[in-house]
Amino acid sequence: MTEELRNKGEAAKQAAFSLAVADTDTKNNALLAIADALESRAEEILTANGRDIENAEEKGMRKAMLDHLALTRERISDIADGVRQVAALPDPIGEIIKMWKRPNGLMIGQKRVPMGVIAIIYEARPNVTADAAALCLKTSNAVILRGGSEAICSNAAIMRVMQDAAYEAGIPRGSMDIIEDTSRETAAELMKMNGYIDLLIPRGGAGLIRSVVENATVPVVETAAGNCHVYVDGECDVNIAESIVMNAKVSRPSVCNAAETLLVDEKIADKFLPHMFELLRDAGVEVRGCEKCRAIDPSVSAADKSDWETEYNDYILAVKVVGGIDEAIAHINKYNTKHSEAIVTSNYAHSQKFLNEVDAAAVYVNASTRFTDGFEFGFGAEIGISTQKMHARGPMGPEQLTSVKYVIYGDGQVR
Amino acid sequence: MTEELRNKGEAAKQAAFSLAVADTDTKNNALLAIADALESRAEEILTANGRDIENAEEKGMRKAMLDHLALTRERISDIADGVRQVAALPDPIGEIIKMWKRPNGLMIGQKRVPMGVIAIIYEARPNVTADAAALCLKTSNAVILRGGSEAICSNAAIMRVMQDAAYEAGIPRGSMDIIEDTSRETAAELMKMNGYIDLLIPRGGAGLIRSVVENATVPVVETAAGNCHVYVDGECDVNIAESIVMNAKVSRPSVCNAAETLLVDEKIADKFLPHMFELLRDAGVEVRGCEKCRAIDPSVSAADKSDWETEYNDYILAVKVVGGIDEAIAHINKYNTKHSEAIVTSNYAHSQKFLNEVDAAAVYVNASTRFTDGFEFGFGAEIGISTQKMHARGPMGPEQLTSVKYVIYGDGQVR
Repeated sequence: MTEELRNKGEAAKQAAFSLAVADTDTKNNALLAIADALESRAEEILTANGRDIENAEEKGMRKAMLDHLALTRERISDIADGVRQVAALPDPIGEIIKMWKRPNGLMIGQKRVPMGVIAIIYEARPNVTADAAALCLKTSNAVILRGGSEAICSNAAIMRVMQDAAYEAGIPRGSMDIIEDTSRETAAELMKMNGYIDLLIPRGGAGLIRSVVENATVPVVETAAGNCHVYVDGECDVNIAESIVMNAKVSRPSVCNAAETLLVDEKIADKFLPHMFELLRDAGVEVRGCEKCRAIDPSVSAADKSDWETEYNDYILAVKVVGGIDEAIAHINKYNTKHSEAIVTSNYAHSQKFLNEVDAAAVYVNASTRFTDGFEFGFGAEIGISTQKMHARGPMGPEQLTSVKYVIYGDGQVR
Repeated sequence: MTEELRNKGEAAKQAAFSLAVADTDTKNNALLAIADALESRAEEILTANGRDIENAEEKGMRKAMLDHLALTRERISDIADGVRQVAALPDPIGEIIKMWKRPNGLMIGQKRVPMGVIAIIYEARPNVTADAAALCLKTSNAVILRGGSEAICSNAAIMRVMQDAAYEAGIPRGSMDIIEDTSRETAAELMKMNGYIDLLIPRGGAGLIRSVVENATVPVVETAAGNCHVYVDGECDVNIAESIVMNAKVSRPSVCNAAETLLVDEKIADKFLPHMFELLRDAGVEVRGCEKCRAIDPSVSAADKSDWETEYNDYILAVKVVGGIDEAIAHINKYNTKHSEAIVTSNYAHSQKFLNEVDAAAVYVNASTRFTDGFEFGFGAEIGISTQKMHARGPMGPEQLTSVKYVIYGDGQVR
């Protein structure tokens, strides 16, 4: 373990004990102070961001990526507003979820407590630094961030501003920090800091997630690959079907809850697909279809197995005509990444069957897959979307950053 | 991946889809049929167990270990009764934990669903085979077991009986199985079966747990190292304190919820410790104490840092006199394994402080640490005790073997 990791890990572990009993007002006041400081010290952050941009340009970063990296005074205000929103959320820590009495008189309560120390490895956008640190502070967790090298100056500047404001507001030192050494080796060591880190959340592309899953020895929540499907049932409102397919595909194709494959019941395919294809093409979407699709519209390019497996994150949609709901469910359970799946149907039994049998974090009837999101679910914030079944599944809001502890009141019971 | 692992993994994954929608009656009837079959085919299991015992004797296994391994007709009936108890528990699967309405009309429900495929790596006692498989079936999970080589004949015989009875009762093939290749290499490969295994639970000694934490790439719940403390506060009922210390130490010293260190407030040490030491010695407990303990009773042997760190699992107790509740909490948070911690006190503020500030799965006021157990908590069954903070903390009963899925009812909502 490098000296930086050990020092920051030790400091986080110590801070976690104090944070666990920090009161809600102290945490919220610190969050509001952080938001103000981000705005009042925007110049410092912008200067640091300028250095990142300069380095990125030298390395020939693509324009779209540069846009993601670049901060402006307005973007910093948006980040500060995000922190204020976190301050306004209810504090989940300390809630007694349930309490029961045993025959021997013991009162056993299940209390919501922080995880302890959360580590987050992320790529690209510097706003994640503020979002993640704010959500961890809200939930009384110490946090160790490790952002990408391309944003390190911006991330470090944002963290410095947050730390200063937090400490001044009574939050213990060590509560939040960022690893300044952005080497792969240090990231790999961070993943093995058992005894320091209670939970590691990777946020980024498939390569990062895979590396964390393969190398981490600390507990991990896997996030967000999304090969999502919309199944248009033989019995359905065609207008709703069209609107959901279009929304799921084109409202924001780059995100994990966008649809990648459309499945259509053969009973409705001839009637439904021609206009659907037209709408998709008008929106600039390339359609890749099965043989039956190509029989309906020969201009559709041919899809193969790799299309059913691919999360395009782009203006491309795979389309397959299926024999009915059973084939649709089988296809989804074979190829999906257990993220978000939708059926459009007016048949009650089909809706229930789909909800029961499709294995995914979020299963929709007559609504777009795009709603899988901490804000849309009403969690008020989100640190990622879990695609594993353990601990948290789906959008991770403040509650998903907590653990529980049993508090037991006795009057001398022995066993 | 070996052929055995791939075949059994594939079968479990397929079975998990059917199990997820199996109805409660089918599962319970299968459990009752399994219990009956274990009894009616006891001879077959005893013959297999005889082979394990013979092999173990040849290898010179210790007598205490042989006792753990040996089955009798009566022990098999106990195992069958355990399976019947699991059948009688409520079925957690399908419960809607909560459901809420969003401003756009979406109804979002959080539904309890199975994990999918659970793998369990365990040591020694063949009863775990039946207990674990029964609890997984109850919770609609497919299970892949990997027991120790010393019990492989018994485990395989028990599994064969359970499989036959389960399949006859309508449970899909692949729902439960045991890995017959007990090599370390195969265990290591099992730990990396991402895409097949949703949750891996190790049950056994510290070496096994460490190996799983270091090598597994699938999600893991760490179980059960227990360096547990009892703190006797300066203000307390001395009779209760004595009875809790004795119970926590000697009722079953080999288990993880037994106490390993006694902390005593200096205000009460002179008065409390002499009789406590006498009681402990009468019960055959070796006391290792700090300097202050040795000043009170020079026959106490000297404890050092390694004693504060050790889970003896034996008739040994480390004892330390502390300056009060703050030092007690600091000591516990420094040395404990976050399992179970108890305070004996009559002071309200101290009880609350201890409950709030001690970081452990279960924190007790005026009760023995020995209660940390799925049965004592009223969960009706237990597959292990989690000492990590993610997913499950403390005793893992049926609910802790479940995940959630969001089911969303819309009427055409798009984003």
